[in-house]
Amino acid sequence: MPDTSLLECFDNANPQRDYLIEHVADEFTSVCPKTGHPDFGTVTLRYVPDQLCVELKSLKLYYQSFRNEGIFYEAVTNAIADDLASAMKPRWMVIETNWKGRGGIRSRIRVEVGDVPDWL
Amino acid sequence: MPDTSLLECFDNANPQRDYLIEHVADEFTSVCPKTGHPDFGTVTLRYVPDQLCVELKSLKLYYQSFRNEGIFYEAVTNAIADDLASAMKPRWMVIETNWKGRGGIRSRIRVEVGDVPDWL
Amino acid sequence: MPDTSLLECFDNANPQRDYLIEHVADEFTSVCPKTGHPDFGTVTLRYVPDQLCVELKSLKLYYQSFRNEGIFYEAVTNAIADDLASAMKPRWMVIETNWKGRGGIRSRIRVEVGDVPDWL
Amino acid sequence: MPDTSLLECFDNANPQRDYLIEHVADEFTSVCPKTGHPDFGTVTLRYVPDQLCVELKSLKLYYQSFRNEGIFYEAVTNAIADDLASAMKPRWMVIETNWKGRGGIRSRIRVEVGDVPDWL
Amino acid sequence: MPDTSLLECFDNANPQRDYLIEHVADEFTSVCPKTGHPDFGTVTLRYVPDQLCVELKSLKLYYQSFRNEGIFYEAVTNAIADDLASAMKPRWMVIETNWKGRGGIRSRIRVEVGDVPDWL
Amino acid sequence: MPDTSLLECFDNANPQRDYLIEHVADEFTSVCPKTGHPDFGTVTLRYVPDQLCVELKSLKLYYQSFRNEGIFYEAVTNAIADDLASAMKPRWMVIETNWKGRGGIRSRIRVEVGDVPDWL
Amino acid sequence: MPDTSLLECFDNANPQRDYLIEHVADEFTSVCPKTGHPDFGTVTLRYVPDQLCVELKSLKLYYQSFRNEGIFYEAVTNAIADDLASAMKPRWMVIETNWKGRGGIRSRIRVEVGDVPDWL
Amino acid sequence: MPDTSLLECFDNANPQRDYLIEHVADEFTSVCPKTGHPDFGTVTLRYVPDQLCVELKSLKLYYQSFRNEGIFYEAVTNAIADDLASAMKPRWMVIETNWKGRGGIRSRIRVEVGDVPDWL
Amino acid sequence: MPDTSLLECFDNANPQRDYLIEHVADEFTSVCPKTGHPDFGTVTLRYVPDQLCVELKSLKLYYQSFRNEGIFYEAVTNAIADDLASAMKPRWMVIETNWKGRGGIRSRIRVEVGDVPDWL
Amino acid sequence: MPDTSLLECFDNANPQRDYLIEHVADEFTSVCPKTGHPDFGTVTLRYVPDQLCVELKSLKLYYQSFRNEGIFYEAVTNAIADDLASAMKPRWMVIETNWKGRGGIRSRIRVEVGDVPDWL
Repeated sequence: MPDTSLLECFDNANPQRDYLIEHVADEFTSVCPKTGHPDFGTVTLRYVPDQLCVELKSLKLYYQSFRNEGIFYEAVTNAIADDLASAMKPRWMVIETNWKGRGGIRSRIRVEVGDVPDWL
Repeated sequence: MPDTSLLECFDNANPQRDYLIEHVADEFTSVCPKTGHPDFGTVTLRYVPDQLCVELKSLKLYYQSFRNEGIFYEAVTNAIADDLASAMKPRWMVIETNWKGRGGIRSRIRVEVGDVPDWL
Repeated sequence: MPDTSLLECFDNANPQRDYLIEHVADEFTSVCPKTGHPDFGTVTLRYVPDQLCVELKSLKLYYQSFRNEGIFYEAVTNAIADDLASAMKPRWMVIETNWKGRGGIRSRIRVEVGDVPDWL
Repeated sequence: MPDTSLLECFDNANPQRDYLIEHVADEFTSVCPKTGHPDFGTVTLRYVPDQLCVELKSLKLYYQSFRNEGIFYEAVTNAIADDLASAMKPRWMVIETNWKGRGGIRSRIRVEVGDVPDWL
Repeated sequence: MPDTSLLECFDNANPQRDYLIEHVADEFTSVCPKTGHPDFGTVTLRYVPDQLCVELKSLKLYYQSFRNEGIFYEAVTNAIADDLASAMKPRWMVIETNWKGRGGIRSRIRVEVGDVPDWL
Repeated sequence: MPDTSLLECFDNANPQRDYLIEHVADEFTSVCPKTGHPDFGTVTLRYVPDQLCVELKSLKLYYQSFRNEGIFYEAVTNAIADDLASAMKPRWMVIETNWKGRGGIRSRIRVEVGDVPDWL
Repeated sequence: MPDTSLLECFDNANPQRDYLIEHVADEFTSVCPKTGHPDFGTVTLRYVPDQLCVELKSLKLYYQSFRNEGIFYEAVTNAIADDLASAMKPRWMVIETNWKGRGGIRSRIRVEVGDVPDWL
Repeated sequence: MPDTSLLECFDNANPQRDYLIEHVADEFTSVCPKTGHPDFGTVTLRYVPDQLCVELKSLKLYYQSFRNEGIFYEAVTNAIADDLASAMKPRWMVIETNWKGRGGIRSRIRVEVGDVPDWL
Repeated sequence: MPDTSLLECFDNANPQRDYLIEHVADEFTSVCPKTGHPDFGTVTLRYVPDQLCVELKSLKLYYQSFRNEGIFYEAVTNAIADDLASAMKPRWMVIETNWKGRGGIRSRIRVEVGDVPDWL
Repeated sequence: MPDTSLLECFDNANPQRDYLIEHVADEFTSVCPKTGHPDFGTVTLRYVPDQLCVELKSLKLYYQSFRNEGIFYEAVTNAIADDLASAMKPRWMVIETNWKGRGGIRSRIRVEVGDVPDWL
């Protein structure tokens, strides 16, 4: 089951400055709750940190905890956005998932948290 | 014949939030009403859901119902936009069709419904 | 000689809505009036129709009528823009030509007619 | 139903010479007999003509006659190979089909008729 | 656990002819027995059938049965080759696995069963 | 009309050595004798010279002389092969034409003259 | 030495209209004044003409006049911008140079002259 | 250890004009302070110079001084931004680092210094 | 210094069968002994195991031990080939290195050990 | 003028072994003796060394000595092959030049010296 306790943060060493961090995970997999077949996708996290940054290995383990979870595309994306927003309280954040085709249809879901900084 | 009764929706679990959903169908085909030859294209649906989201398999079946329909590029695109707007009542929606070349000319039609959200 | 009488239009079935139509012709050829050598390029037409849309096969024949015409890049592009604007009276239109290299230089010409719609 | 009577041939004007002809059709579609869902693929014909060549437009119409036929990948490929071998009696021929993914698996079938010429 | 009972075969309708069948599965995943981290790869099956062909959906389910199996790259590839050779007894067969990078190193394993046909 | 008198040759300065020359012309156009529509393609000449090499600008002018000629794919390719073989008497030569799609089908024709050298 | 006298202009036939002209020269070379080694790059000219357009062959010869000139990236780009602005007096213009890597570093310089038109 | 004394600047010869300079270094490497394994990435510097420009070879040597430094992605990027801002005092500057995947996750960090010019 | 003691092997579980293993390391770096500048490249190991296979993590550490070694392209490639042949005694092996450009020249070195198997 | 005295060789440290060395120079330029316009191309050297290897920087300087030489494609390629064969006396060698398009035609010349080794 998705396990938010896996997420670890470290102090942002440059909080005086707005800057952008992006982590693209190409090897995300969960399970379709309807068919039981595995889904495969890419999860992109893009954010402007406030006081905390997410630690990269803990992010990988958190993503791996979805491996055998039955969950829809829209729900995965909103869940990751909520969990990371709670853990890091970023100034701004986007989660975007891109899913391999099912029945000839490829999907993308994009959730944004906070106001886009002026400079982006 | 295009059959809107095939479209099924499910409740948007996150209506408190504006977010983006995109489905790209690479295997769309209909028939040119003038020449009787098949047309092949890609249909992209991009929307911000309000209370309803379109179910993915029902979307595929709805697209397949155009298979032997004689219909022009412009008409296909406007028809899909109208049908999906009726079914989901999204906050914002785009339908874009991209057609393989005919006589050395490739075509693209783009219909937008509703106001673009500020954050896009 | 370029022959505007080849252009045929049909009624826009959705004039109540601003939407975008694009036709990309990869196989345009004319002749350089200075050297007599053939020029090869791509012509992109992108427009928001008002009451009329250009018929695709007539567009192809109109483009083919430039085949043995001696005419410069800039002149071709402005001529096509003027001819199509006269024929269709679109709400907005762009003609862009992209030419294969001559002497190691590739060229692109872009003519716009009408005001860009807010939503583009 | 696949209709071999659509295939027309014309006389090979250069039978004194072994040479290669290839036609790649990107817009092939048939129907899966098991699920009823459409299949999409590319059909490549590569051959050394003897006395006859297949006429290109008749080949297109013959391929289109599979549009609503329920037939497996392997059967399509063997059927096209048999039909074209009967119609043209080529010195050598290959039919290769490449199918878009189903359930995350892409397929390719390749049938060869006659001996590969030494010079290939 | 990898489950060969999932594999189903159907009769080859064209045993009089040597021909090639290829299935490329882009969404294979298993688990590294050493680190417990998931591995992701592509499995390519290429074969000349004798009396039997593997059914495509059963192949997908068989591949999915490796999802939570701890097994090395070399062992996966040899196991799939052995299982499919037992099930289909093909005239010739290749299994090739291509794995995403670990620590900056991408791997590929290729196992061949039977003699390459002269015509390949 | 195709005009072989345009072809000019110069002496091969290194006849003591078998070596390879290739010229790829991306901007070939002729006319379909059946429909009157223009055809567009690439012509590749690859050869081992004997005493003569074809001069590059004369080759371009010769290719341009097909511009308004009504001629089939197979005929163009055999004609160019015969004309260049007469003009240069090469030790070995290939002419390959690659044509843009017509009705969703792309074509390629390949004519070879002389024996392939051992070292190729 | 760079030679601005090579630049020739012709009258803009459509001064009543703001439109865009772009010429991309892939084969620019000059010499590094520090090391004496050749530099290779691409020069892109993009402008909205006023009364004059630069003639394409004269532009090529002007670029070639830098061939044996020892000059830094920044200086080349500013010099070309100044020379072309003097010669054509365009409503708006950009010169962008893209240089192949030196010591593992690729460079790009972009100089803009005049105000960007509203419609770009 | 990162060594800012390696950075050398030269006078901007065109301070009267706002223009853009970009240097992309594909061969950056440092060491992960946690695992001791090397990290590999690309560093992009993009800036509008004021009175000074950074000399290209000195920039390369400065980047090389990170080779055996144990330092996190975020820290590298902020450090380079601070060092170059001190050395050149540019009107505007961006440092962006793109890192090869670790554990299936690729990262990008982007730090901006100064206000974006209106014309960018 | 390159350290062969880092290389660890494990028993080949399928010695009864000739099969192929390939590991591609994209992040190799060493130092040019002449200029002191770092070199960057890709190292491909391709082999048919006999009784032993090289363990993947030990291979990574062995490659990392070249990081600060001053050594030419040709020497690196031959050294790796000798070290791995000693450690694994494979039936057949290739080491190929591909190096990023220096002064506009990209290099590749390929060393083969043992006889190519008939089936490759 | 092409200057073979620039070529320097060093002793092959592994003459007991046949192995392959390749150097690809993307930035070759010479001058067309007929038109006076510059030619741009890539020169690939691929060889099996005997007692000597060509030193990389000397190869670059030798190539640069063609910069202002008026010389045809065929002559450049044969000249480089002769010069390098004299300097290194390799067991086997190929020189291949690939030239950017002139008048829409791209060219490639390939000269081979010595017998291809069995293992290639």
